[in-house]
Amino acid sequence: MTARPNYDLTTIRQQDLKHHFHPFTDFASFKDTGSMIFTGAEGAYVVDGEGRRYLDGIGGLWCVNIGYGREEMAEAMAQQARQMVYYSSFGHHTSVPAAQLAAKIAELAPGSLNHVFYGSGGSVANDTAVRMIHFYFNRLGQRSKKKIITRHDGYHGSTYLTMSMTGVAFDHIGFDLVGDGLIHRVSSPNTYRRPEGMSEAEFLEHLIGEFRAKIEELGAENVAAFFAEPIQGAGGVVVPPKGYHRRMADVCREFGVLYVADEVVTAFGRLGHFFASESVFDMVPDIITSAKGLSSAYAPLSATIISDELYDVLSVPQAEGAMFTHGFTYSGHPVCCAAGLKNIEIMEREDLCGHVREVGPYFETRLKELQALPLVGDVRGSHFMLCVENVADKGTKALLAPEIAIGKRIASECQKRGVLVRPIGHLNVLSPPLTLTRQEIDVLVDALATSISVVADDLTREGVRLS
Amino acid sequence: MTARPNYDLTTIRQQDLKHHFHPFTDFASFKDTGSMIFTGAEGAYVVDGEGRRYLDGIGGLWCVNIGYGREEMAEAMAQQARQMVYYSSFGHHTSVPAAQLAAKIAELAPGSLNHVFYGSGGSVANDTAVRMIHFYFNRLGQRSKKKIITRHDGYHGSTYLTMSMTGVAFDHIGFDLVGDGLIHRVSSPNTYRRPEGMSEAEFLEHLIGEFRAKIEELGAENVAAFFAEPIQGAGGVVVPPKGYHRRMADVCREFGVLYVADEVVTAFGRLGHFFASESVFDMVPDIITSAKGLSSAYAPLSATIISDELYDVLSVPQAEGAMFTHGFTYSGHPVCCAAGLKNIEIMEREDLCGHVREVGPYFETRLKELQALPLVGDVRGSHFMLCVENVADKGTKALLAPEIAIGKRIASECQKRGVLVRPIGHLNVLSPPLTLTRQEIDVLVDALATSISVVADDLTREGVRLS
Repeated sequence: MTARPNYDLTTIRQQDLKHHFHPFTDFASFKDTGSMIFTGAEGAYVVDGEGRRYLDGIGGLWCVNIGYGREEMAEAMAQQARQMVYYSSFGHHTSVPAAQLAAKIAELAPGSLNHVFYGSGGSVANDTAVRMIHFYFNRLGQRSKKKIITRHDGYHGSTYLTMSMTGVAFDHIGFDLVGDGLIHRVSSPNTYRRPEGMSEAEFLEHLIGEFRAKIEELGAENVAAFFAEPIQGAGGVVVPPKGYHRRMADVCREFGVLYVADEVVTAFGRLGHFFASESVFDMVPDIITSAKGLSSAYAPLSATIISDELYDVLSVPQAEGAMFTHGFTYSGHPVCCAAGLKNIEIMEREDLCGHVREVGPYFETRLKELQALPLVGDVRGSHFMLCVENVADKGTKALLAPEIAIGKRIASECQKRGVLVRPIGHLNVLSPPLTLTRQEIDVLVDALATSISVVADDLTREGVRLS
Repeated sequence: MTARPNYDLTTIRQQDLKHHFHPFTDFASFKDTGSMIFTGAEGAYVVDGEGRRYLDGIGGLWCVNIGYGREEMAEAMAQQARQMVYYSSFGHHTSVPAAQLAAKIAELAPGSLNHVFYGSGGSVANDTAVRMIHFYFNRLGQRSKKKIITRHDGYHGSTYLTMSMTGVAFDHIGFDLVGDGLIHRVSSPNTYRRPEGMSEAEFLEHLIGEFRAKIEELGAENVAAFFAEPIQGAGGVVVPPKGYHRRMADVCREFGVLYVADEVVTAFGRLGHFFASESVFDMVPDIITSAKGLSSAYAPLSATIISDELYDVLSVPQAEGAMFTHGFTYSGHPVCCAAGLKNIEIMEREDLCGHVREVGPYFETRLKELQALPLVGDVRGSHFMLCVENVADKGTKALLAPEIAIGKRIASECQKRGVLVRPIGHLNVLSPPLTLTRQEIDVLVDALATSISVVADDLTREGVRLS
């Protein structure tokens, strides 16, 4: 398959350094180190320019659910590119894969979530959801009902609007946010960091009460929607107390607030189901946003999936003769939709959701073992969406100094051992391809365990107190 | 190439109608008519489900610059998908095509525009530009310098922010916009609709004066950037008076306001050059945003291209230890970047820019002939970006009643004749693949001419007065 490469790595490295402005870049080191160049990828492994092979515990970025290098994905995309590569889906035009995938998504999505609006990524899916919600309440004549409630440590994207909805404080530093009182926040349902002395049951009541109070403070007539990831992702793989989403949804219903489940990470198998909202958390939201696993990142694709009830209001012709004037050139891109269709076909054929439900608990159990190691304050998550929280003091949960960059340091040790885990601040996050076998899980967890031990020893030698 | 299709059209039509929520949909008719299904595309032609072939005067949506069905594009994308389909380019990771394409774009872009931030479409490219600009002025300590000036009839995208920057009033109906005094607007440089009795030279002075007054009204210390398409696209293919962009850029420089050229439509050959800003309009902006022609729509791809001066400020590590926390999962997607690289290779090999420079004036001349027809108030544009403005009265430039939907009506007549032109309100827009030959241009223009005549006759018969 692999032809002789038509590039040399030194040139690529220079080109990247000089001309590629990366997303989420740490410029404290980028200009010195440059980039790691990945030149190959197959199954659960990626290969760098020097031919080193790594087990990818990150899944690209929570997204390569079916694994890398699937020939039938490449062929499905190429075939669509040959046949009918693109036409705008504005208004009354469509393509075969855009129609087929919409029907397939509607079949997989819970409740009456039967209408699929396409975009090219999670940010745009969430941005679209807000614009639809504003339009919806305008159509209903509830013109003040516009405010959006999100949560601290929620991650919803990187457009101006969706980064403003994002509650990861670190990500806001140096940037501006949407003003005008549009976005409001409630607590992260982080049980590990819950107020001291509060039981998990009490914490749940506290969160529900806080949400209710927030709506009452803003006035239900001003609150349009609540956005929440079933399990918070980039904010730290935060699994809420049992019953949380169902209870939050009840509050939403009580106050006529729409519930938007941001399933960009959790959908398409990561928790063992195509969608987690109903299957895992026993609730049906008004809108689900999805991306990443939808195409396993073979092509940029997202979906904003809305209920019959919303569609019925949004799809009434405007009195003024205007149209539903929202959308993107690449909404419903045929090649991307063909990738989405083939991706779901593979997931169903290989029962990857079943595999995750079967192997996920083993993954969780193995990772929980790390709790015994120094540094490890918490191990949490579910199935193929897991994380280790590193702390200086297990009793007080105090963090290490930021300049130690503990997450990165552990990730570097893993990398030396041929395993990639994602550092986010003091966390190490695992979200591998869903194809991982028990043996590969062992390789991943063992490498992480060894790396944590090595780093803990090094830190102790350097005089850092761990307890 | 074409295998027996594994679908039936009736099912596809139903799936699309029930489950595909289209962008920019006119729900006054969608539920009755459903969608036109395109099942094939090659060269400058698309084919519908019934096997009818159409010369695509729209180029997908100003984007399929190299034409449809290029085998080497399909192969380049498939090869990248096999080899290394995806890895996050967050922070210090890259792929060969992301690095190579960034260097190639920097080579093609004017001035010191040497740094490429990737996204998946024009909306995101412009959204990114604003977020970068806010970050830039924050870094410089000019924290009040945040307001954005755009123009009536400018189109900049459909995220919450970029639709707020968009100045096409029709697109705002029913939706909400960013408040807080962030976005401000000046006039469209539409010479056809300029104030009566004003010469084109006077109109130019008027526009420059208005812009200067707007900056002074807001306070230069509060104005961050001016966004403008070299030729307004969706707002009506508006070519500004000669010297306009250069003069506007001078005003920007005088007040320390950044100039962002939205070249989503104009770049990659549509005006006969890879970028139009310097080559056509003799000015070098601080940022160019690009999408569409960058990949000829074979894959979702955009670029926000920034100057050395901006990069030097943006890439200084933040004092707080924070990172440049902006970006998207699919920033620098290897398959999309491979499509971009191959697209540029084809454009250079076939000298498509040269072809457009050679054939474009013929296209313009032929289209200008339509000025003699009834209905046609104005024919304007440049090279492969042209438009006909239909009016009820050529003297007063009065429009027909909106319910006549003149643009759509003419487009429908064209469609019967095997030619697609884009209706936007009372306009018909032409932005075909750049490969069009003189003969194909004749077919396109002749079909449009006949369609306009037929519709004019029909309207007269229906008692509509045209003059």
